[in-house]
Amino acid sequence: MRRFTSVHDLINGPGLDVAIHDALEFARHPWINTEIGRRRTVGLLFMNPSLRTRMSTQKAATLMGAETIVLNAGSDSWTLETRDGVVMDGSSTEHIKEAAAVMGAYCDVLGLRTFASLTDRDADYAEDVLEKFITHAGVPVVSLESATRHPLQSFADLITIEQFKPTPRPKVVLTWAPHPKALPQAVANSFIEWMSAANVDLVVTHPKGYELAPEFVSGVAVTNDQDEALAGADFVYAKNWSSYEQYGQILSQDRSWTVTEDKMSLTNNAKFMHCLPVRRNMIVTDGVIDGPNSIVIPQAANRVVSAQTALYYLLKGPA
Amino acid sequence: MRRFTSVHDLINGPGLDVAIHDALEFARHPWINTEIGRRRTVGLLFMNPSLRTRMSTQKAATLMGAETIVLNAGSDSWTLETRDGVVMDGSSTEHIKEAAAVMGAYCDVLGLRTFASLTDRDADYAEDVLEKFITHAGVPVVSLESATRHPLQSFADLITIEQFKPTPRPKVVLTWAPHPKALPQAVANSFIEWMSAANVDLVVTHPKGYELAPEFVSGVAVTNDQDEALAGADFVYAKNWSSYEQYGQILSQDRSWTVTEDKMSLTNNAKFMHCLPVRRNMIVTDGVIDGPNSIVIPQAANRVVSAQTALYYLLKGPA
Amino acid sequence: MRRFTSVHDLINGPGLDVAIHDALEFARHPWINTEIGRRRTVGLLFMNPSLRTRMSTQKAATLMGAETIVLNAGSDSWTLETRDGVVMDGSSTEHIKEAAAVMGAYCDVLGLRTFASLTDRDADYAEDVLEKFITHAGVPVVSLESATRHPLQSFADLITIEQFKPTPRPKVVLTWAPHPKALPQAVANSFIEWMSAANVDLVVTHPKGYELAPEFVSGVAVTNDQDEALAGADFVYAKNWSSYEQYGQILSQDRSWTVTEDKMSLTNNAKFMHCLPVRRNMIVTDGVIDGPNSIVIPQAANRVVSAQTALYYLLKGPA
Repeated sequence: MRRFTSVHDLINGPGLDVAIHDALEFARHPWINTEIGRRRTVGLLFMNPSLRTRMSTQKAATLMGAETIVLNAGSDSWTLETRDGVVMDGSSTEHIKEAAAVMGAYCDVLGLRTFASLTDRDADYAEDVLEKFITHAGVPVVSLESATRHPLQSFADLITIEQFKPTPRPKVVLTWAPHPKALPQAVANSFIEWMSAANVDLVVTHPKGYELAPEFVSGVAVTNDQDEALAGADFVYAKNWSSYEQYGQILSQDRSWTVTEDKMSLTNNAKFMHCLPVRRNMIVTDGVIDGPNSIVIPQAANRVVSAQTALYYLLKGPA
Repeated sequence: MRRFTSVHDLINGPGLDVAIHDALEFARHPWINTEIGRRRTVGLLFMNPSLRTRMSTQKAATLMGAETIVLNAGSDSWTLETRDGVVMDGSSTEHIKEAAAVMGAYCDVLGLRTFASLTDRDADYAEDVLEKFITHAGVPVVSLESATRHPLQSFADLITIEQFKPTPRPKVVLTWAPHPKALPQAVANSFIEWMSAANVDLVVTHPKGYELAPEFVSGVAVTNDQDEALAGADFVYAKNWSSYEQYGQILSQDRSWTVTEDKMSLTNNAKFMHCLPVRRNMIVTDGVIDGPNSIVIPQAANRVVSAQTALYYLLKGPA
Repeated sequence: MRRFTSVHDLINGPGLDVAIHDALEFARHPWINTEIGRRRTVGLLFMNPSLRTRMSTQKAATLMGAETIVLNAGSDSWTLETRDGVVMDGSSTEHIKEAAAVMGAYCDVLGLRTFASLTDRDADYAEDVLEKFITHAGVPVVSLESATRHPLQSFADLITIEQFKPTPRPKVVLTWAPHPKALPQAVANSFIEWMSAANVDLVVTHPKGYELAPEFVSGVAVTNDQDEALAGADFVYAKNWSSYEQYGQILSQDRSWTVTEDKMSLTNNAKFMHCLPVRRNMIVTDGVIDGPNSIVIPQAANRVVSAQTALYYLLKGPA
C-alpha cells in the first residue's frame, strides 16, 4: 500500500475485511510485529496543532519498531506554498514540492496533517495540499486528517464498532450536535464513507442546512428528525460540523440536538461514540458521556490500533 | 507506587531512606535497570514551557528503557476545562477527564506539569488540575511541578545534599532572594516539605510578608534575619517566591537579600544551591555561583536521578 | 574531535580527505556503525525555528544508535543572557553559562542553532553565543548553523559535489540571487570556506554592494558579472544574502540575477544546487529546479550524511 487517505486505499489494497481482521489482531497483541519498522523512520508533519493524533501515531510507530520524527509546522516556522508557477516573493518560505521531497529523503513513511480553510470549498475538497504532498514525497504517505477526511479516526471508529456490536449488522446513527466554533466536515464525511463500506445500517441526522457533500452522502439515509434516527440505534456517533452549502458557516447552536439521557433512551441501549475532544453539555451531557454506555475512551484507544494497522501496510509496501 | 507528587508518596511507598539509597545507586550506575521500561511509554504533558524538567525526565525514561512522548499543551493548542458540570461553550476545547483518560490509554506512566495561577490561591492550593488528572488517568502519574510543589526538584535537592553533606546532620538554610517577576511558592514549599522529612537542621529566612503557607512551615524554624540564619550553614539554598498572604504579589526586590560572597562568609563554608534557572546578580552574585562552593550544576544533573528513581517506582507498580 | 563549527575542525581533526571518505561511506552504508551512539544522548537546542536541520540531525543520531532530545528555545520559553557580569533583572531568564552546563550534564553531545541578529555585525561575527555555549557545555558541540557559518550544510554541499563532479577539479560558482527578505551571510560564508579547502575552482558572483566579509573571500575569485562567472561552470550554487557592508540591508531584488534556463545554458551542463528552502522564481526558475540537472534533493539528503559524519567524530571523542 502506498497511501492511506481514505477507506478506498484499504479496499483497493489488502481489502477492508482483511484490514479489520489485522487491526483486531493488533488490538489484542500490540507487540506482535516490531521487526517491520526496524531501522525505519516515520516522519509526521502537522500543519495545525494536534496532540491525540500525534500521540497515537507515535505510539503506533513504536509498536512497529520504527523511529518517529515529529514536525510541528506552525505559522511561525514554515509556511508552505502549494500553487504551481508562482513567484515566491511573499510570506511562504518553501514550496510543498521541496518540503515533501526532502522529508521523503529522510523518512520511510510520512504522515501529513492538513486542515480545511472553511473559506474556499473548492480548494478544500480538491485536497490540493495532501495530493501534492503525496506526489512529491516519494515514499508512502498516511493522512493524519486532511481537509475533507480523517481516515485514521474513521478506521478506529470501525474497529470500535466491530469490538462492541451487539448484532452482526448494527444500526449506526451519526448525529450532528451543537458546538460553539465552526468545525470542518472531515470527521463526518469520513465516518460516512467508512460506514458505507462496512456491514452496518447507517442513518445520518442533522438540522436543515447541514447537508454534507453529495459525494459522501449519496445513497445514505438522511433525516432531519433526530428522534426518528435514534430509534433502535445500536451506536450513536455525535459530531458537530459547519455548513457545506453555506461553506464553513454556523447555522445553528440548537441545544435540542445535544445528546442527552432522554435521547439515548430512544435507542436500543446504544453505545455512545465521539472522536474527542468533546464539548461537554453542548455535544453530549455529562450523564451520557460519563455513563456505562459511553465508549469514547476505548474508541480513542483504538486510534493507536488504526494507526498501527495503516503503518503496517505502508511499511510492508506495495507487495 | 501509583503517584509521585510529594515526599509523602515515598514515605508511604518504599520509604524515604530506601528511596535515597536507590537514587544514590542510580546516580552511580545509571544504566543498571533498562529492562523495567521495555515496551513501556512515558507520556509527559506540559501545560507551560519547560526545558530542564522535560530534558531530565526524558533522559530518565531512556535510562529505564522506556519510550517517551512529550506534549506541549500551549495556549494555542489545547485548553483544558477542569470544572465539573460546566457547559463547554467557551474557549476550553477538552475536559481534563477525557484528556487524562486518553493519554492514560496510550501510556504506561504519565507526567503532568501544571502551574500556579498566582491569582486564585484556593484553586492553586487545592491542586485541582493535578488531582483530577490523577483520578482520570488510570495509570501512575508523576508531577513535573504542580501549583504548590516541585517534588522532582526537591528529591534532586535531597540527593545532592546527601552527596555533599559534611556532617551526618547538616544545617540547611532556605533563603528568599529578589527576582524581577512574581514566582510561585512551589519550589520553596516542596523543599521545606522534603527537608522536614530528612535528617537536616532546616532554617528558612525571608523578608516580612513572605511567610509561606502554614501547612508547609508549621514547626519549621523561620527568621527574618538572613545573617542569623546563615550563621554556621552547611548548605545555602536560594530561591525567590511571591507572597502567599498577598497572593502572588511582589512585596520586595531588596538586593540586600542577594546571596553574596560576604553573606557566604557567615556560613560554615556552605555549598550554594539553586534550582535554576537563576537570575545572576539578583538571586546570587557571579562570584558565589561561579565559585568553588557552588553545586548548582551537580544539583541540576541530579534531576535525572530523581526522575529515574520516581519512574522506577511508578513502572514497578504497587507491589 | 571536540567541536564541529567550521571546516577547520575537520582539517585539524581527522583531516578533510578522511572526512570526505568517511562521509561517502556513510552515504552508502548508513547503518554501518550503530554501536558508537549506544546509551548516548544527543541534545539539540534550536534558538530559532528549524525543520530540515532538526530532522536530518535527529535521523543522523538514530543512525549512530544515539537517543536525541530536541529543544526549541522560542521567545516564549527560554531567553538566554549571554553577557557577562550583568544584573539579570530584565526579560532573559537564564544565563548561557548554566544553560550550556546543565544540558551538557544531561547529554553526551550538544547541537546549537543560533542566528545572526543582522543588526550588530560585530556581535554576529564574534559568534559570541556559540563560543560561550562551547566553553560551558563540557561536552562536544556541533553547530547547527551559527551567526556566520552553516558547516553541516557546507559539508553536505561538498559531499554532493564529490558525488556528482564530472571532473577531478570541477568549476563551482556561488551566485547571489534575489530574495524578498534579509538573510544572513552564513551559508555563503561557509560554502566559500569549505570550497576554498576543497579541490575545486571556485568563483563567487554577486551585485555590487554584496561583498562578503574579508576573512571569507580573501584570495577567492569574485566578479560582479554573473554571465562571466557561469561560463563553463560544472556546479551552480545559488544563494541570497543581505549586505555585509551595509549590514543586514537588502540592496537589490534584481530578478536579472535569478538563475534561469538561459543562464544555465552558459555553463558546462552544470548541476544546480541550493541549500533549501528556496524561493521559486526568485532564486531560480521552475524550469531549472524541476529540470534534470537540479540536484537539490540529493543535496538535502546529504544533510543526514554530513550530520552523521560530524556526530561520528564527536562521539568518538578526541582520540
